Amino acid sequence: MKRVMLTVAYDGTAYHGWQLEPTGITVEEVLNRQLSALLGEEIRVSGASRTDAGVHAKGNLCVLDTESRIPPEKIAAALNPYLPKDIVVIRSEETAPGFHPRRCDSIKTYEYTILNRALPDPLRCRYVAHFRRPLDAARMQEAAAALIGEHDFAAFCAAGSQALTTVRRITALTVRREGDEIRIRVSGTGFLYNMVRIISGTLMQAGLGALPPEELPRILASGDRSQAGPTAPPEGLCLEKIDLYPEGFPEGLW
Amino acid sequence: MKRVMLTVAYDGTAYHGWQLEPTGITVEEVLNRQLSALLGEEIRVSGASRTDAGVHAKGNLCVLDTESRIPPEKIAAALNPYLPKDIVVIRSEETAPGFHPRRCDSIKTYEYTILNRALPDPLRCRYVAHFRRPLDAARMQEAAAALIGEHDFAAFCAAGSQALTTVRRITALTVRREGDEIRIRVSGTGFLYNMVRIISGTLMQAGLGALPPEELPRILASGDRSQAGPTAPPEGLCLEKIDLYPEGFPEGLW
Repeated sequence: MKRVMLTVAYDGTAYHGWQLEPTGITVEEVLNRQLSALLGEEIRVSGASRTDAGVHAKGNLCVLDTESRIPPEKIAAALNPYLPKDIVVIRSEETAPGFHPRRCDSIKTYEYTILNRALPDPLRCRYVAHFRRPLDAARMQEAAAALIGEHDFAAFCAAGSQALTTVRRITALTVRREGDEIRIRVSGTGFLYNMVRIISGTLMQAGLGALPPEELPRILASGDRSQAGPTAPPEGLCLEKIDLYPEGFPEGLW
Repeated sequence: MKRVMLTVAYDGTAYHGWQLEPTGITVEEVLNRQLSALLGEEIRVSGASRTDAGVHAKGNLCVLDTESRIPPEKIAAALNPYLPKDIVVIRSEETAPGFHPRRCDSIKTYEYTILNRALPDPLRCRYVAHFRRPLDAARMQEAAAALIGEHDFAAFCAAGSQALTTVRRITALTVRREGDEIRIRVSGTGFLYNMVRIISGTLMQAGLGALPPEELPRILASGDRSQAGPTAPPEGLCLEKIDLYPEGFPEGLW
């Protein structure tokens, strides 16, 4: 029995998110089905990040156990021809038995992209949230600064979260304009349910001028979801990567 | 009665091309249906370029005649909310009665994008042709040089074309690598059926080293489709723009 970790990229548009659920097809379900067929045994992957419906990933992680004799590092290339074009396994590798990326110190990085111009773009509509009113990226960055560090993010967490604590650490949060796009890039040790989308929606309010950046500390302190901005739509969100620290976070990482 | 010209962008993935046909939904059909509903009369658009199934456009053009009192330049904004997300009308404007972009001197610009790396990318798979063997962009550019100018492109035309002549003028043709993408950008006074995709497939053969660039003049002269390379797949192709010259091409344009 070997434990294998996969790095998975996908266009989430067609899926009801990562995790198995009864009402629609999920990325996990497709992987389970095709891995089971390839390896000739029932495979159940377990993911590091349960991305929502419509959210994309360039580097989600999952693990599986297999008795197969296919070398772990060859599973990616063997599997890809049997996957739909919107899911690609970037890498497969053996890990220690019992290893799980969810039980390992890690930093996740997400990027949220807003197309900020009058007209929508049919060639980017799957990957950006279109927002026609002009956003001021500098004000968004100013508002973002208050969120960096360790805080109780209860005000930035959707109802229905089963997290034991709402304290999380954001290690980096930048807002930059690139042509007609605004990109919010955020890294942290963990994120609550819808947290990145609520942060993005709140920063957009700041970018509009509807929310003064100096209000952010008050919103954080309130712990009240209704004080933060709306949840930005899923299509703008992409899980860029998950950096694992199996020996714990190194000294001086923040 | 007014004649109105629309500039239309679309993701062609879900469509059986531009033009009305019995076997699947087309961009033209969607525009006719939604324009007829908006303007309250039966509208039939007529396009400048009949892009193939799966081919994209940032700036295709079409004209229509309407009795509507909606000002022509407002039709785009009025129509967009009723279009699917993969079709956007960028601009609408009044033109002279009887004007048609197909009967006007014009330069069309297409871009063909190849993702040239080992792994496919699920987040770009709709807009690039994935090709894993390394391509040499400099050799592709060298081969491309022979195609610039006025030539008989019969060797680069798919069977079934109804063109009266296979002579066309390519005014610019460049090949550049940008990271893991190779982009073939070609402008010309007109293109035969599948011509850009056959040029792209032929340049890819040159980029692989399978076809010496100095062979291109011979292939052109042969007029024989079997001498050129394969037709590259549609998803890599995008009609970038159509520049119109209603008073004829100016002196010194090439």
